[in-house]
Amino acid sequence: MPKIRFEPSGVETEVEAGASILDSALDAGVHINASCGGKGVCGKCRVTVEEGEIEGGLSEKISAEDAEAGVRLACQSLVKSDLVVRIPVESALDKAALKALSAGSAQVAQLIGAEDLRAEGRFDPALAKVVVSAPPPTLEDNRNDVARLLAALHDVGERRFVFEFEAIRDLPEAWRQGDWTVTTTIMRPVDPSSGRNQVIGVAPGDASNRNLAVAIDVGTTTIWAQFIDLNSGEVLGNEGDFNGQIGYGEDVISRIVYAGKPGGLEKLQKAVVDSINKVLQALAKRTGVDLADIGIATVAGNTTMTQLLLGVEPKYIRLEPYVPTAAYYPPVRASRFGLALPDHVLMLVFPSVASYVGGDVVAGVMGVGMHKDPRLTLFIDLGTNGEVVVGNQDWMACAAASAGPAFEGGGIKFGMRASKGAIENFSVNPITGEPAIITVGRALPKGICGSGLIAAVAALFLAGIIDERGKFNLDHPSDRIREGEDGPEYVMAWAPDTQIDRDITLTEVDIDNLMRAKGAMYAAYMTLLEGVGLTIHDLERVILAGGFGQSINIERAQIIGLMPELPPERFTFVGNGSLLGARLVAMSNPLRAEVGDIVEKMTNFELSVAPGYMDNYTSSLFLPHTECTRLFPNTCARLQEAKAALKNMA
Amino acid sequence: MPKIRFEPSGVETEVEAGASILDSALDAGVHINASCGGKGVCGKCRVTVEEGEIEGGLSEKISAEDAEAGVRLACQSLVKSDLVVRIPVESALDKAALKALSAGSAQVAQLIGAEDLRAEGRFDPALAKVVVSAPPPTLEDNRNDVARLLAALHDVGERRFVFEFEAIRDLPEAWRQGDWTVTTTIMRPVDPSSGRNQVIGVAPGDASNRNLAVAIDVGTTTIWAQFIDLNSGEVLGNEGDFNGQIGYGEDVISRIVYAGKPGGLEKLQKAVVDSINKVLQALAKRTGVDLADIGIATVAGNTTMTQLLLGVEPKYIRLEPYVPTAAYYPPVRASRFGLALPDHVLMLVFPSVASYVGGDVVAGVMGVGMHKDPRLTLFIDLGTNGEVVVGNQDWMACAAASAGPAFEGGGIKFGMRASKGAIENFSVNPITGEPAIITVGRALPKGICGSGLIAAVAALFLAGIIDERGKFNLDHPSDRIREGEDGPEYVMAWAPDTQIDRDITLTEVDIDNLMRAKGAMYAAYMTLLEGVGLTIHDLERVILAGGFGQSINIERAQIIGLMPELPPERFTFVGNGSLLGARLVAMSNPLRAEVGDIVEKMTNFELSVAPGYMDNYTSSLFLPHTECTRLFPNTCARLQEAKAALKNMA
Repeated sequence: MPKIRFEPSGVETEVEAGASILDSALDAGVHINASCGGKGVCGKCRVTVEEGEIEGGLSEKISAEDAEAGVRLACQSLVKSDLVVRIPVESALDKAALKALSAGSAQVAQLIGAEDLRAEGRFDPALAKVVVSAPPPTLEDNRNDVARLLAALHDVGERRFVFEFEAIRDLPEAWRQGDWTVTTTIMRPVDPSSGRNQVIGVAPGDASNRNLAVAIDVGTTTIWAQFIDLNSGEVLGNEGDFNGQIGYGEDVISRIVYAGKPGGLEKLQKAVVDSINKVLQALAKRTGVDLADIGIATVAGNTTMTQLLLGVEPKYIRLEPYVPTAAYYPPVRASRFGLALPDHVLMLVFPSVASYVGGDVVAGVMGVGMHKDPRLTLFIDLGTNGEVVVGNQDWMACAAASAGPAFEGGGIKFGMRASKGAIENFSVNPITGEPAIITVGRALPKGICGSGLIAAVAALFLAGIIDERGKFNLDHPSDRIREGEDGPEYVMAWAPDTQIDRDITLTEVDIDNLMRAKGAMYAAYMTLLEGVGLTIHDLERVILAGGFGQSINIERAQIIGLMPELPPERFTFVGNGSLLGARLVAMSNPLRAEVGDIVEKMTNFELSVAPGYMDNYTSSLFLPHTECTRLFPNTCARLQEAKAALKNMA
Repeated sequence: MPKIRFEPSGVETEVEAGASILDSALDAGVHINASCGGKGVCGKCRVTVEEGEIEGGLSEKISAEDAEAGVRLACQSLVKSDLVVRIPVESALDKAALKALSAGSAQVAQLIGAEDLRAEGRFDPALAKVVVSAPPPTLEDNRNDVARLLAALHDVGERRFVFEFEAIRDLPEAWRQGDWTVTTTIMRPVDPSSGRNQVIGVAPGDASNRNLAVAIDVGTTTIWAQFIDLNSGEVLGNEGDFNGQIGYGEDVISRIVYAGKPGGLEKLQKAVVDSINKVLQALAKRTGVDLADIGIATVAGNTTMTQLLLGVEPKYIRLEPYVPTAAYYPPVRASRFGLALPDHVLMLVFPSVASYVGGDVVAGVMGVGMHKDPRLTLFIDLGTNGEVVVGNQDWMACAAASAGPAFEGGGIKFGMRASKGAIENFSVNPITGEPAIITVGRALPKGICGSGLIAAVAALFLAGIIDERGKFNLDHPSDRIREGEDGPEYVMAWAPDTQIDRDITLTEVDIDNLMRAKGAMYAAYMTLLEGVGLTIHDLERVILAGGFGQSINIERAQIIGLMPELPPERFTFVGNGSLLGARLVAMSNPLRAEVGDIVEKMTNFELSVAPGYMDNYTSSLFLPHTECTRLFPNTCARLQEAKAALKNMA
């Protein structure tokens, strides 16, 4: 079997002849960015074949010059012999990018903690450790081990039990090793009035000081986990990593398509479980926690991530009329899905509202308490599928806007995630057209991330270099504005000033993609509000969730028409709302009960058939909007000022 | 690694040098009888090493002559080179023996059937197939697949559900393959007033005509299974085989000891599961049933068999004060224990009362309706551990009598199970001492089974050849009565008339073992009855369960004092009561609820500490009993007659 060595990591692997380089890399745990799931259309998975023979791999995405230098698309390159393959910086994942996201998690950790819950009398975890003792058996009293435990639990006021098989199986040794004292791990029922206490585990002696939960956010891009000490309420640490499914496609649609291939669902399931386990093990190492002491896992993810984690066929999420399999899943044993958690640990999986409004949104809404707040709130989770929730304690409406991947750098010629070398900030001299760019990590630029894209379009728009339809002013004197191979474009960085030795440009196609993305979001807010007879100006709060949400500059997002033009004090960044909700549910069984209320309360709108949506969308495909004066008065005023200033300077 | 060929089967296997021949045989699926679990004390695992080199294997159980001919104990023989090992007839299992047992199962099948349950309005299986249809989803109604199913179930009057994860997982394809008709497999709750309907599986379209259950009796010696069509109530067939654990020891105590060795519990668990699967596959083949159509499994076994099947540590069953792990086990997925049944099939495991009064007894008591009958009934399951239940609809007391393995041929020099060549019937000429023997299958004798043993002791006792203390009359003129190497003995068959080329004898040690066994049983009846102020003569019914029970001759069993001396019409043979109960529970959810009532009603007596037991036992160590006149008046009279006749003849 041919051997491949991947550079710069030096990882070596053996593969079947005829396998693609991308598949080989993923199987070996080497990440190569690939947005389209191996179809060969996104052109992201560029690698350089330094030694050895391959078949295929060329594409219109690769220039003749690059092809000459050995650049190929990994997904289209079939292995013929031993190879040395170099993964260029722009095709590799950059773990540094996680640091920015991590900050958001910490912010959330401060937002609502065990103390707040205690103050409200709601620090009441679903997982309880109850320690009981019993007299040892004699010939006169040789009741079975379970009967002895039930009597002891009864003595301390515990009632109404159902036993998991594993707890029964482990009980004989627990009683005797603990010298007739055992610690019983009990899952409280969601509804204490009708449900039963579920005995999920037993341990010898008094082990009640080890009572931990793990909250897990399964994102399309990243996995985050937190350990929570259920006795103190303390969060013991955060840890994150990329979701290993990324290699199979960057967005949920590519993943669903991949899941439809033979063995695809199993591979994706394994990939996300491996990633979760990596995060759990890293977090365990850092916090000194023994994974064996974890008794419960709360998990939130979008509908596709949830179904892929559980191995539930996702294809009907993608096909009209977009039907998910279930809202609620029963508590399931984490170990049966391969999670590196003790056998008895149950996963509480957040329910979904619809195919594109999933458990992550429900968790976020719960986390920010929107369902118990009288203020009219707009909750936004920005991403490939931007989820939007409008409402308050009395009602909630939600929708998914097919924003496309522009906010995460997808569909953008030099788009990338917010990792080292990504242009994240931008300003421009309106006269000369010369830019100032700032990159993540202050490195030489290698691409543009979402916030950089918004900054660039906002600045170029205010500078009059692009117009309200997103078209370049080709009369501008700057040589940065030119006709490129994909049409008019603006050179953000010249090749010698980059890490990638190519000009980094912003094209009209990129701008068009961003406008579609922001238009989809804005039209979603409008449509949901109009559906209940309200307008943008009735909004009392806007909550931005998600990793990207927190890196956004509200002012610039308003200039391009992505965010409603409301006073800045009405905006709140919540960071990782999904993880927040997951943690709260681990800490509070009453909150767990509220999750079901949220799902029942939330009405999903399919925007594609919602009255008015298409009109709203069309009106939003302008900078900032066709109804600029009514909806974006400040931006209108600034535009006028900028034009006047430019005229004065000229 | 050395190779072994086992003859006469010709099975070949490779083993580690130093492994015992017994372990090697069991690992290769070749059965060698072994009663003591490999300790080298029972002497049952005789094999002939025809070629190759071994270490050890000699024992006082093997005569010098046999040792010269290559006979060794398999458990004590360590493999040193390639071997050819012949397993002699008396060491091999004989599947023909199952036929006799099978007759009993058929008898039971007629005893209580679906028609009887229907007549009582109790044919109401816990497993229901409910077929529902729904309109296909549209963009206006794109509820999730589970919500659509719940609405459809609601429309046909079904309420209160809890979903198993697997049913959710399979639902998307079931809805669509069935063109929006699905068959839902529902487990009804034991208590319909408080429990929930459990959706355990879904299938496309109308699959309600395939609704099968399997009832399984997990015996220490044999496994029996029946398929039941839950629509018609028809029993589709019986099938049985030996429990593959036999090779690790014949009785529950040897098995518990073996389970304590490293990996022992796992091996025993696998052995019984393999045997069950063999039976299921054989039964599927014979009946044309597809195992995929089975929706529920009911399982009854004694406490040790239950714990070994579930992989629950059994050692405390054996150690004073004899504590089992649990009475009740929750419904558990059969597939997780390795059973060859569909993923969604739940096993309903019969609860145990005590370490030696298990689910098989509970199933038998339920099967014969003892808990709903006003008549005072004695229920006896004869075996190594004879279980005894006394009571009626108002109360029940039970106990296990440590009868020892005599009834199954254990501890008897030439004892064997009731398989081909076993002496099963016997009479003797009191003057000459010459016997008439009848063997199972009318073959040349190779040993004595339990019924033959009882017949022989009863006949020799009536003939005055053995006295009431079980001692031989050495003054008798027959040369069959002689001093053997184990003391006085009676030659039942001379070597040339046997399959084994050795004299088959009945020794005083054998008789002593039988008397201890029958004494333990009789003392158990007495003690339980005395405990509630009753006597043997108050018994209105005696029910004999178990494979051995049905081959017993009541009159002879009374002569030796094993059965109480009551009129024959008060005795009923119920055959495999365990399988009967398992089948009934599969057919009737109301009966399933009654199982719990039986367990709660039944008081277990530990005979070793029960007042009066030791006195009763001592009094029972006579033929038929020290209180012959009071308790066995008929036998007393027959003895007097026989003595008188003998005197006349002499």
